[in-house]
Amino acid sequence: MSDKKHIHLVDTTLRDGSHAVSHQYTTEQIAKIAAGLDEAGVEYIEVSHGDGLAGSSINYGYSVTSEEEMLKAANSVIKKGTLTVLLIPGIATQTDLEMAVKLGAKAVRVATHVTEADISEQHIGMAKRLGLKAFGFLMMSHMVSPEKVAEQAKLFESYGADIIYVADSAGAMLPEDAYNRVSAVVEAVNVPVGFHAHNNMTLATANSLAAIEAGATYIDGTCRGLGAGAGNTQIEALVGVLEKKGYHTGIDLYKVMDVAEDLVEPIMQRPQVVRNAPFMLGYAGAYSSFLLHTYRAAKKFDLDPRDILTELGNRRMVGGQEDMIIDVAYQLAKKRGV
Amino acid sequence: MSDKKHIHLVDTTLRDGSHAVSHQYTTEQIAKIAAGLDEAGVEYIEVSHGDGLAGSSINYGYSVTSEEEMLKAANSVIKKGTLTVLLIPGIATQTDLEMAVKLGAKAVRVATHVTEADISEQHIGMAKRLGLKAFGFLMMSHMVSPEKVAEQAKLFESYGADIIYVADSAGAMLPEDAYNRVSAVVEAVNVPVGFHAHNNMTLATANSLAAIEAGATYIDGTCRGLGAGAGNTQIEALVGVLEKKGYHTGIDLYKVMDVAEDLVEPIMQRPQVVRNAPFMLGYAGAYSSFLLHTYRAAKKFDLDPRDILTELGNRRMVGGQEDMIIDVAYQLAKKRGV
Repeated sequence: MSDKKHIHLVDTTLRDGSHAVSHQYTTEQIAKIAAGLDEAGVEYIEVSHGDGLAGSSINYGYSVTSEEEMLKAANSVIKKGTLTVLLIPGIATQTDLEMAVKLGAKAVRVATHVTEADISEQHIGMAKRLGLKAFGFLMMSHMVSPEKVAEQAKLFESYGADIIYVADSAGAMLPEDAYNRVSAVVEAVNVPVGFHAHNNMTLATANSLAAIEAGATYIDGTCRGLGAGAGNTQIEALVGVLEKKGYHTGIDLYKVMDVAEDLVEPIMQRPQVVRNAPFMLGYAGAYSSFLLHTYRAAKKFDLDPRDILTELGNRRMVGGQEDMIIDVAYQLAKKRGV
Repeated sequence: MSDKKHIHLVDTTLRDGSHAVSHQYTTEQIAKIAAGLDEAGVEYIEVSHGDGLAGSSINYGYSVTSEEEMLKAANSVIKKGTLTVLLIPGIATQTDLEMAVKLGAKAVRVATHVTEADISEQHIGMAKRLGLKAFGFLMMSHMVSPEKVAEQAKLFESYGADIIYVADSAGAMLPEDAYNRVSAVVEAVNVPVGFHAHNNMTLATANSLAAIEAGATYIDGTCRGLGAGAGNTQIEALVGVLEKKGYHTGIDLYKVMDVAEDLVEPIMQRPQVVRNAPFMLGYAGAYSSFLLHTYRAAKKFDLDPRDILTELGNRRMVGGQEDMIIDVAYQLAKKRGV
């Protein structure tokens, strides 16, 4: 072992990246990518529908490959890494997790909205009983103060989570926001802390580095940044950057670069570029599911959709409040005398 | 005026971005983009062949639009901004700069290799006599220590440069490298300091923020990051990030976003993505012109081109030393017993 500080990387190309390919991964693609990542030395390989176990549905989009086939394909090729699944309470149930364990899952990331860690108690408990490594994953962590994130992290810890993640699901954080939230959590809990970035403001790598500086030892990434919205931290670049900074990841840089260029890039539906819509979601700190509704409301009231998104961000609206978008648009239009 | 700290932005879409469109900008494209940037409030609009005035040649690639037409097209639409040109001593001469001034250029960036500021004395002097704002621009600044960069910056200052830039031409810097070099220059000179980033390691915005933290008040960017190699700092995102951080740029965020999406994106030859080749150039800190030679040498000696680039970076080889690539490859092959 090297005496450099070790940073554990979680590759979520086959989970967050699933959003960006409209959940169309084939078993062959999953097997090749998982094998490549494993061979490169990636520690955690997350494989699930973009919205986690049981995400394949009319609400979240159907996967072309069933959950069983997905996990089997990955598990059949992973030799050293840990096959990991995502579970969002409310979408997946105990039965789904039991199925995943039977198919080889060794770790689960239980994800809740940053203020709702309390709905995860049973799921974390179940994960521990099933012998899994359990991650607590706080989504949309930009929405509340570092103190509040830390309070929720402590809940996760009290339920038995082995690792707790601060997730910048909307790509809304500046490096100092990532630093402050991760610091607060590191201070509050006795388990390792992780960080999950999105690149909406071109800051995914910067924020991942800020999180490490604040004490995070687990970082998420995806090949070529493939992921929801503007995508995630580009893992092959992160491996090189961490190496250059003197950290140890155990990952072979050339091999992970090859997975990105030879296996992932060819199946991408579009390049992971920061276009205006994802930028604005990050800038406003708004839910990505608000985008379509916002464009419709903007058209109806002759407004710039960016003003609506900014206002939604200011009001800290969360998923499920889509019906409020039309109200916000109406109020903005009235204020401007449209 | 706001009492927020002002950061001056230089848009170089129509200069560094010229590399990425193989110098094929038409007068119509130049006029539209320059008008959009000006209308958005961008202070400095750089327009030149990618290699500066007189760059259009068999060596550097011919521009589809002559220098005269380029500058005329931009100057006819710029109302508030400063039309800026790039001059690399050895490529352009006094005559070229006089021509640019006649066509409306109000600022010039005199660019030299980071150890060769001394070849710029006449050019900076000429620029001042012609009434221009003169930038001294230290290319490939990652190659030498912060102290050496500062020493070269002092030379530029002694010749009369109004602003001095640290340029990470190869995208080889980590944020701390940018911070340390800019800090050293800020300490050494009494004129404002700027920073020019490339995104080879996905760190262009991060490095620009590090430079500002170190005291830089001028920052370069391009629409959609369009530029040589992995491109530059994405200016429309940078404007939003700086706004969110509480800086003042005088630029209208929505307008610069629109220029990027409506005018620049449609004419891009390829998305500005961090693929393996540009990543490796940044990681190795090697000249981009080494790439093709390296791939040839790698094939000849059955080596991974990435190992050759890394070795070229370690030896701090500079442009003009292309003939050494085959030697390096030969030595690597011998060492491995190929």
